[in-house]
Amino acid sequence: MRHDRLRMVGRIIGLSAGLAGSAAMADMTSFDRTVTLNDHQQPAIPRPDQDATAAAELAAFEARTDQKPNIVILLIDDMGWGDPGSYGGGEAIGAATPNMDRLAAEGLRLTSTYAQQTCTPTRSAMLTGRLPIRTGLTRPILVGDRITANPWADETSLPAILGEVGYNTLLVGKWHIGEIEGMRPHEVGFDEFYGFYGAQKEITQEFDANRYPDLVLDPYMLGAYEELGNDINLIHGFSDGRTEVAIPTLGIEDMAEADLRLRDFTLQKIAELSQDDAPFFIEHAFMKVHTDNYPSAEFTGASASGFPYKDSLVEVDSIIGDIVDALDKAGELENTFIFVTSDNGPQMDMWPDSGFTPFHGAKGTTWEGGVRVPGIAYWPGMIAPGQVSDGLFDLMDLFNTSLSLAGALDKLPQDRFMDGVDQTSFLLADNGESLREHVYFWMNTTFMALRMHEYKIHQHVVMNEGSPFLWIDMATVQDVGTAPWLFNLYINPKEDYTVGHRMSPWLATMGAEMREHGATFARFPPKNIGL
Amino acid sequence: MRHDRLRMVGRIIGLSAGLAGSAAMADMTSFDRTVTLNDHQQPAIPRPDQDATAAAELAAFEARTDQKPNIVILLIDDMGWGDPGSYGGGEAIGAATPNMDRLAAEGLRLTSTYAQQTCTPTRSAMLTGRLPIRTGLTRPILVGDRITANPWADETSLPAILGEVGYNTLLVGKWHIGEIEGMRPHEVGFDEFYGFYGAQKEITQEFDANRYPDLVLDPYMLGAYEELGNDINLIHGFSDGRTEVAIPTLGIEDMAEADLRLRDFTLQKIAELSQDDAPFFIEHAFMKVHTDNYPSAEFTGASASGFPYKDSLVEVDSIIGDIVDALDKAGELENTFIFVTSDNGPQMDMWPDSGFTPFHGAKGTTWEGGVRVPGIAYWPGMIAPGQVSDGLFDLMDLFNTSLSLAGALDKLPQDRFMDGVDQTSFLLADNGESLREHVYFWMNTTFMALRMHEYKIHQHVVMNEGSPFLWIDMATVQDVGTAPWLFNLYINPKEDYTVGHRMSPWLATMGAEMREHGATFARFPPKNIGL
Repeated sequence: MRHDRLRMVGRIIGLSAGLAGSAAMADMTSFDRTVTLNDHQQPAIPRPDQDATAAAELAAFEARTDQKPNIVILLIDDMGWGDPGSYGGGEAIGAATPNMDRLAAEGLRLTSTYAQQTCTPTRSAMLTGRLPIRTGLTRPILVGDRITANPWADETSLPAILGEVGYNTLLVGKWHIGEIEGMRPHEVGFDEFYGFYGAQKEITQEFDANRYPDLVLDPYMLGAYEELGNDINLIHGFSDGRTEVAIPTLGIEDMAEADLRLRDFTLQKIAELSQDDAPFFIEHAFMKVHTDNYPSAEFTGASASGFPYKDSLVEVDSIIGDIVDALDKAGELENTFIFVTSDNGPQMDMWPDSGFTPFHGAKGTTWEGGVRVPGIAYWPGMIAPGQVSDGLFDLMDLFNTSLSLAGALDKLPQDRFMDGVDQTSFLLADNGESLREHVYFWMNTTFMALRMHEYKIHQHVVMNEGSPFLWIDMATVQDVGTAPWLFNLYINPKEDYTVGHRMSPWLATMGAEMREHGATFARFPPKNIGL
Repeated sequence: MRHDRLRMVGRIIGLSAGLAGSAAMADMTSFDRTVTLNDHQQPAIPRPDQDATAAAELAAFEARTDQKPNIVILLIDDMGWGDPGSYGGGEAIGAATPNMDRLAAEGLRLTSTYAQQTCTPTRSAMLTGRLPIRTGLTRPILVGDRITANPWADETSLPAILGEVGYNTLLVGKWHIGEIEGMRPHEVGFDEFYGFYGAQKEITQEFDANRYPDLVLDPYMLGAYEELGNDINLIHGFSDGRTEVAIPTLGIEDMAEADLRLRDFTLQKIAELSQDDAPFFIEHAFMKVHTDNYPSAEFTGASASGFPYKDSLVEVDSIIGDIVDALDKAGELENTFIFVTSDNGPQMDMWPDSGFTPFHGAKGTTWEGGVRVPGIAYWPGMIAPGQVSDGLFDLMDLFNTSLSLAGALDKLPQDRFMDGVDQTSFLLADNGESLREHVYFWMNTTFMALRMHEYKIHQHVVMNEGSPFLWIDMATVQDVGTAPWLFNLYINPKEDYTVGHRMSPWLATMGAEMREHGATFARFPPKNIGL
């Protein structure tokens, strides 16, 4: 593992060094990238005017409300970029999403928001502001995984910092960043946790005899599975360390109703927390639409398609509407920055009950289908309605941006490499432009690809056995060979024809930027937690 | 050719007869399909309540304005379903389309609008309300084609009927349904024509020495080409038969500026016609974004992508904004039904300078990529804003719907089979539902596929040589073999995994419906014009 990582770092440096000598590298940039480059922070594009505008807006907000804004992140599990109507899905795929579409229409719809390619990496990156390769949380934690070192021991979480500056912090729903002692949400910074430690399927599979008869109907197999000690219950945890089973999970129905129960808790907490002078940070992480999908009784058949995934998507969308309504009713809507997104692309392997992306690949790949997700920023009065931007946004940017909104950027850790970028002015300024120029893609411990502007360069690619759906279960990671694969995503969003050396205005620059990225690992070695 | 057609009809009947005996056929429908089925009209789903609502709305409109509504069709050439921002493209593909997106947001965005798979078939179907196989206009008319019988001789065009009931009728832009005498727009029903007879590439190719040096730089080749008598000029034609060269096409620049010149003419005519008591019907048919794209000087570099197709898309979008503004300024906006669409999917063979569809296939195929197009219905005060529907809409429905808006449905031809459906109430009633249950897909003279609800069944499919782009130039039409290919477009919009006999609630019904369709050709034989 360690060896692999060193080889990977070397590979980045090697390739890039080869390209760096090219004349094409010179003068390809519109700003001096060294300006904000320090040794422990992802460089951002300087946009001083826009930053000043956003700072003035925020100052006016604080003067008006005498508070820092609430922050609410609505994180859907495994929803595809193409699923919401405002991204080309919705009605067109038999699952209308009027609530998400309304937030998009009345806010800022981001078309190039990036997650990691699976769950644990995305969720941990968002809460640490750091790439999974740096924290050790490089792949989904599975039932029975033996983690040899608690990665949170030396990480600083977003809710921990927000708590320090006076926020009430709450995680509702799916955690999936470790359930052993010391790794639980209420132990790593959240005041309170109400949700599940694992993913939907890790819970439902031991109940679904139609889909998993080999597990459910075989006492020996089921015994072996249960011995792993998977906690499948709806847990209520508190920052003093206490945890209790809020609702035991006794069968599929509990999971079918889970998202409505989680909703009810969030609605109740919004009502409570709005009574407090302190602002709040809520991450509401849906269990749906992660496989296996069982819509609640109320939403069964609610979609035009009628498939469980689609009904579940409609359910999630409806809950988003409920949460926004609750904020409104509590008088907090104009005090709250809301961000709606997904933790990765759709898991197509579960087709026909899966999501939609117009792109190549799916969850578990670093093709656009795996990492490009919806990103909707909504804040009435602070984000102008009707905006759309293709500016790059990495979900890790929610770390820095949230600190910025909370006036806590001075608490950004200085002793490690931070990959997030403060995107406050991108989100708040009218027609704001992204401050991020690079998105780096990793697959577990392998460096895969870099996006800059509309270009994406791949050093490794995920290939499958030719099926349009088998993107995790039959996939391999392959080296691209002689030349990097370069795609122009504007003319070829599906990444099916590399423009390679024929059309490569950005090739040498991207090589140099990969070298910079590689160099950060020389200064700050990656962490190994035994995953 | 004749033989092929008979074989095709037999094939439909044959397959369907085989399926019709299945028990699954019974009771699959929510209405009695025989109700509106007469022997010469595509059956429509009866929606009496919705029809009454729309009729009352229209009556109120007429009482208020003392006129029939104007009808403006904005037909873009070869734009992909995925190109506008409101369909998932726009900013995401480096070509923002704020004007189309605004019309979509403030009107009705249709997600399942269907064109024919190429240009001439779509344009003629829209203006005759009949499938190309019935009119003989089964494929694009090419320079030098010898048409043996004028298909218009016994067809009744939409502008001809609208003219009869008092409309001023105008075609601006691309015609491409015949340029020999008797087939020109001002000879088949339009009062006036200002545009080009052929497609963009048929005009530009003889000037572009970079792209076509073998033609342009070879006097012998160019001479042979010019002998075909292709009229490349911007023509002004009048219903008295007069035609004049409005602007001679002397080089690429004339075509680069053509869409702005066409715009200026439409703006001028809107100002003129709004002074007249009679309502107007304008089909504004863009030359762009058909290959080869040369954006006008004003729009060169206007898109984030910078590629000529993208700049041209931005130009077209801007012109749409200009036309809407002109209607507004003329006081006609609330009197005008506007429909924005494309004549087929993107022509991917010209990649990298081509459009975007999230679907499989492209122009020249009956995969969704070839036939599914944006469809935006906009009419302030009459169509409620913010509506989206996946209800089926065939561009042929614009024939019946326009007659209905003009109060001229009694002039619908009775002596031939009419494939359009009056969709007035679908478009006008709040949350209206489509009156169309079937969309039939033909490729030249071969019956290919049927869509009903979210299902699509293929009897023939277009296959290519594995390239994501070679959809015309290396494609073949193949019989599907043992079993029809059946796709559920909600769970599999990309048509890559047939649900065939595994999941087929609709299979037998669709077989029976294909038989009905086949039977119409026994009653009304297809026409052969030598194409």
